[in-house]
Order: sequence, then C-alpha cells, then structure tokens
Amino acid sequence: MELSVIKIGGNIIDDEQKLAAFLDVFAAIKGKKILVHGGGKLATKLAEGLGIRQQLIDGRRVTDAETLRIVTMVYAGTINKNIVAQLQARGCESMGFTGADGNAILAHKRSHPTIDYGFVGDVDAINTNLLSHLLLLGMTLVFAPITHDGKGQLLNTNADTIAQEIARGLSSSFTTTLVYSFEKSGVLLNADDDRSVIARIDPGYYQELKQQQVIFAGMIPKLDNAFAALDAGVERVIIGRAEELPALLEGKTGTTIAHA
Amino acid sequence: MELSVIKIGGNIIDDEQKLAAFLDVFAAIKGKKILVHGGGKLATKLAEGLGIRQQLIDGRRVTDAETLRIVTMVYAGTINKNIVAQLQARGCESMGFTGADGNAILAHKRSHPTIDYGFVGDVDAINTNLLSHLLLLGMTLVFAPITHDGKGQLLNTNADTIAQEIARGLSSSFTTTLVYSFEKSGVLLNADDDRSVIARIDPGYYQELKQQQVIFAGMIPKLDNAFAALDAGVERVIIGRAEELPALLEGKTGTTIAHA
Repeated sequence: MELSVIKIGGNIIDDEQKLAAFLDVFAAIKGKKILVHGGGKLATKLAEGLGIRQQLIDGRRVTDAETLRIVTMVYAGTINKNIVAQLQARGCESMGFTGADGNAILAHKRSHPTIDYGFVGDVDAINTNLLSHLLLLGMTLVFAPITHDGKGQLLNTNADTIAQEIARGLSSSFTTTLVYSFEKSGVLLNADDDRSVIARIDPGYYQELKQQQVIFAGMIPKLDNAFAALDAGVERVIIGRAEELPALLEGKTGTTIAHA
Repeated sequence: MELSVIKIGGNIIDDEQKLAAFLDVFAAIKGKKILVHGGGKLATKLAEGLGIRQQLIDGRRVTDAETLRIVTMVYAGTINKNIVAQLQARGCESMGFTGADGNAILAHKRSHPTIDYGFVGDVDAINTNLLSHLLLLGMTLVFAPITHDGKGQLLNTNADTIAQEIARGLSSSFTTTLVYSFEKSGVLLNADDDRSVIARIDPGYYQELKQQQVIFAGMIPKLDNAFAALDAGVERVIIGRAEELPALLEGKTGTTIAHA
C-alpha cells in the first residue's frame, strides 16, 4: 500500500494563500498520507511580541525553556490545529499529532560535550503500530515538529528529521515516498537557475555531483538524509516545490532520489 | 464497559503541583477515561504579555480573532501537550485532541440576535465511532476546549459543555460517569461551609433545593447540565474536588447526581 510522507516548510506555512493552495492538492492526493510541518516565522514573531530574546549560540538558535513554550504553542497549537481544520474542510479526515500524542515519537534531549542545544530532541522510536493503525482507518496524520522524552518533557525536533524517521519507520508496512517540499524546484545543477533541476539522483551520481562540487553546501545534509532514508527502506525521496505536489509524486517535476 | 469523562478547570491547570498530583491519580484510575481541560489564566496572561485587550461585552469575554488565536495556542498547544506528555510519563497512553482532530467535535458558530459571541462554537456532533475505537485501543483521550465547524474555522467552546457532550455521545457504548472537577468539595447546602456537601441529588430533590433557594445561582447551569446528561443516558454525574478523584469515583466524597 502506498504512503506519502510530505514535509512542508516555513515558505508555505507563512503564506496563507500558498498554504491553502497546497492543502487543496494535498487533500486530493490518493493513498495514505502524512503531513509534517515546520514552524515558519510565527514563532519568532510571537517571541518578539512577548519581548523574548532568541538565544543564539554560534548562530544556532537554542531552544531554552521559553522558546520551547513558544514553539509548543505555535507549532502544536496554531499551525497544527489550523492545518487540521483546513483539511477537514477539504474532506480530508485528519488528526494532529506531536510526538507525545499516542507516544508517536519518542526522543531524548540531545547531549553534546561542548554545545548546549537546550530542549532539542533526537528521535529514538516511532510508534509505527499506532500510526499504521490510524492510516488504515483512513486517517491522514499531521505532525508538528515536537517530540517528547517519555518522562514528561516536550522537545523541539527538526521537521525534516521527523519526516524522515516516520517514513523509515513505516516503510516496512507501506511503499513509502518521502517528499521534502522546498523553495526551489528540486536539486539544481546551477543553484541560480531554477530550470536546471536534476530529475534523478542515485547513490553513484550523488558521489559524482559531490566530487564536482555541483551540490551546494546546504543541500548535502538534505541529500545525506534522503539516502539514509532509502537505505532504511523508503522507496524514494522527492525534493521539489510543494505547489507542484501531484507532478512531484508522478515524477514529472522535482528531483527523485532513489537507488540505481 | 466503564468510562470516566473528567473535566478539570483553571484551579488545577494554573497550579503546577496540583496538576501533577491530579495527573497521578487520574493516570491510576481504572477503566476507559477521557480528560477535558479548561484554560485557566495562561491565556489571559499571554494576551496581556502581547498587549491584546480582552474584549468584554456585558462582562462576557468575546472570542474575537485574536483571542481565538491565543486560546488555540494555549489550550491546544501548551496545556494539552504538556498534559499528554505528563500522562505518558505516568504510563498512561494518551492522545491530545481538539474537535478538529479526527472531526471529533463538530460545532457551529453561535448566532444570537443581539449578542456577538465571536468565535464561540455550539456543539452539533461527537465522532463517537472514532472516540470509542481509540478508547478500545487502550488510549486515554485529552481534550482541549476547541472545536471546529467543518469549514476550516476553529471555535472556542466551553469545557463543561464539551465534557457533557462527549459523555452523552459515548453513553450508548459505555457505562459513563461524568465528573465535573470543581474548587469546592461538591454541591453545598451552605455555600460557605465546605463540610456541608450534599452526597446525592436526584431530580426530585433538585426541585426542592431550587425552591428552597439552597442552591446558589452559579450552580444551577452546572446542575441543569448534569441532569441533561443523565436524561441523555449518562449513568451519573459527580461534582467535587479533582484532588479527591478516586474517592469521587467511589462515591465516597463529592455530590453524585443520578436518577432516583
């Protein structure tokens, strides 16, 4: 059975019209589906409104207790519930989740010898039984990027990682496609030319592209993640614009990452 | 099969230690269970922090768009997710809900010829199939007092009402007890004496108490609600302190509202 796990980022979430258009196409896609949303600028705006300074260490945002409180409100409250209500309006029976709900995603607080990341969670386990069960009931699942440690602590977890872990976890029960929605049309041969999308990358070609330094720095973790997902059983990973979702799933646009 | 639907209010939610103690006893109670939480003072505090004025008309808080945004963040985000994470830590497999999730509670925006209540929802339907199914899977459900209209609009709905509607809806499948947790020990014969708890009220005694004007004004809607729930199939309604939950369920403390 086909499952699509689709991650959308801030560029969609922050733009009401883009989000509505995306949800139109998302609601219409066939098969089982899971949406993972990031946070966008709302959390930063709320923190500013409350006069809370974002703590940055070496340019990296630290999830201190105040920031965790804010992302929990914005991601699990505002964004998650609005997306669920919007999907219901489109006839898509959906249910919002954090990792705490149904123990869907168990994580632990990241520990690092020199960097304090604060309340950031690294994923330990996905409750694949529950998620499979709900998908088979006909439910679409909508995940906010919040996990928990099983000891009462909520944790902030990267949405790309959540999408990947869910896709990996469910790939033994479903033929799983993982879609990373992105502000560009796909992985580009020329970062400045949105027409230069590479249609397909397999592991051999990826090595070549890296050696030629065609793939710019920011894409490397995304692609490493994509190949890790493939190695763990995900059928294919697609990178492209959320607005082009049906065409992405048909392999007509975007970049498909797959085994040779 | 036994089901307890338990509503807790601001006096528990606003006090971290009281909440922790309540969750200890809630996690330990036997049988299927649903927790409905109100909002408490957090939403008001957040609105104040953001410099948002609460609109009051005739002393009644109006849920304008800003207020809805805030209660969605605080109720469905902060409070709901923290309670779920705390229950998981106590070995109680739980899942957070608003009415939008799984279309659990469908409502419509209240319309009134002269009063504008704003984004306030009156309940139309409970998705009893889904809720029963999840309860039978062993899941404890935690509801924030937010519903939706099926057209993409979230709505603010009174937590007492949500608890009552859920209890009514599920009373055909479960032997249902509805508990209204409260800052007093129960319905009091003398409002100033917390020892004067009336152990049991049936419809006839309720009429007498009202005629004698023993029951103070604020209790009447609560008790009318309780009797409406009984008429709709709920087995009993219990009013008392959340801290005394096990004793309440055993009928040892609090006021039990039941048919004669």
